[in-house]
Amino acid sequence: MHFTSELRLDGGVLEREFTLGEIPGTLWTPGSEPAPLILMAHNNGLPKGDSRLVARARHSAAHGYAVATIDARGCGDRPRSAADEQARADLRRAMQAGEPVDEIFESFIGPLVEKAVPEWRTTLDALLSLPEIGGPVGFSGWTALGIRLVVVEPRIAAAGFFAGGYVPRAQREEARQVTVPLLFLLQWDDEGNPRQRALDLFDAFGTKEKTLHANLGGHTGTPWFEAEDGGRFYDRHLR
Amino acid sequence: MHFTSELRLDGGVLEREFTLGEIPGTLWTPGSEPAPLILMAHNNGLPKGDSRLVARARHSAAHGYAVATIDARGCGDRPRSAADEQARADLRRAMQAGEPVDEIFESFIGPLVEKAVPEWRTTLDALLSLPEIGGPVGFSGWTALGIRLVVVEPRIAAAGFFAGGYVPRAQREEARQVTVPLLFLLQWDDEGNPRQRALDLFDAFGTKEKTLHANLGGHTGTPWFEAEDGGRFYDRHLR
Repeated sequence: MHFTSELRLDGGVLEREFTLGEIPGTLWTPGSEPAPLILMAHNNGLPKGDSRLVARARHSAAHGYAVATIDARGCGDRPRSAADEQARADLRRAMQAGEPVDEIFESFIGPLVEKAVPEWRTTLDALLSLPEIGGPVGFSGWTALGIRLVVVEPRIAAAGFFAGGYVPRAQREEARQVTVPLLFLLQWDDEGNPRQRALDLFDAFGTKEKTLHANLGGHTGTPWFEAEDGGRFYDRHLR
Repeated sequence: MHFTSELRLDGGVLEREFTLGEIPGTLWTPGSEPAPLILMAHNNGLPKGDSRLVARARHSAAHGYAVATIDARGCGDRPRSAADEQARADLRRAMQAGEPVDEIFESFIGPLVEKAVPEWRTTLDALLSLPEIGGPVGFSGWTALGIRLVVVEPRIAAAGFFAGGYVPRAQREEARQVTVPLLFLLQWDDEGNPRQRALDLFDAFGTKEKTLHANLGGHTGTPWFEAEDGGRFYDRHLR
């Protein structure tokens, strides 16, 4: 893990860009150490530098968590294959036309999740070797990746998932294997995530300790107080 | 309003039983005044002295709220008519037998809500005349009553509703007139409140600012952290 920049924020939070082989990432660490860790995996359509994601990460770091995010292969600012670009274009066109998108979605997001998982695990290994990071480890964000990651990665002790209307078949089937405490956050009118599917997914998770939060509005309309609610969820399970 | 008993709790909270005409109630007030007020309307099957309700009220009062609850006509420890007793018995039997309960429920809960509303408004008048209570006013608990009350009572500025699977037709129709900020809390496997109906009701509320919380388990299984989340909801809207 090679740190390429360093920014000291108010409240003692240190924000550092890093590279780990081909993987670009950002790590926020609080003043106190060793800190519990939150893996903040963003929706593949957003770069890790998206301002809302950065605001959430800084908020969590200011409350005593180390937070890390990466652009996994094909995500954020990472190069995309011509096939990926085509699939994204097809998906956008089909959604705008109101056509069924399941198969496009499946062929596009399924492999993206498969490619992201080993990169996140490699990142987790590197993060946990840093003296400023202790544990336990929580996951936050991208539902499809999160399902896969908590199923294969016993070091993740709690998970906050967002949206979850479109999740590849493999992860929908794995949902019952998710047994860590779970906070599932969705937007009631999420234009890209059918509500009933998200509710069905919540129902399917195997964990006994699951909480659903939903707010009115579209995909990007999540109210800020959900960041604070999320913080308290991690406080209950990672402290 | 006639106070009949007084108990001083740790943290300076004063817990007083009162009567207001025929209406028996309990009022919790914090050390500081004048305090914002939460009307904590319990499910009609529970007496106001139920230990979980009392614990929630004490928690809110310790955080600076005046909290009031009453046993409205036919609720809690108040005398019930022979017809009410019969309806309750019919309802219990039908639910146990897995028979449709809508009509029994309608004929039983509909009038209960109608009778409770004026008693709650009379109580609100009396509470707001006390120097230790300022405002604004929030509602917490029984969904059917809460819908009716916030529609007719402009003094209520925010509402937390619980369960809401069985709500009389009149209140289901009024749901779109609910325009105050809303926290709707349900139990995912509530044996007495069909999930889909509760979700449909959440969808129907007219307010732009509505949040759904759901947790795994049956009617009485709400985790304690929801009392704290509820507290933060009122903090956002009543402070």
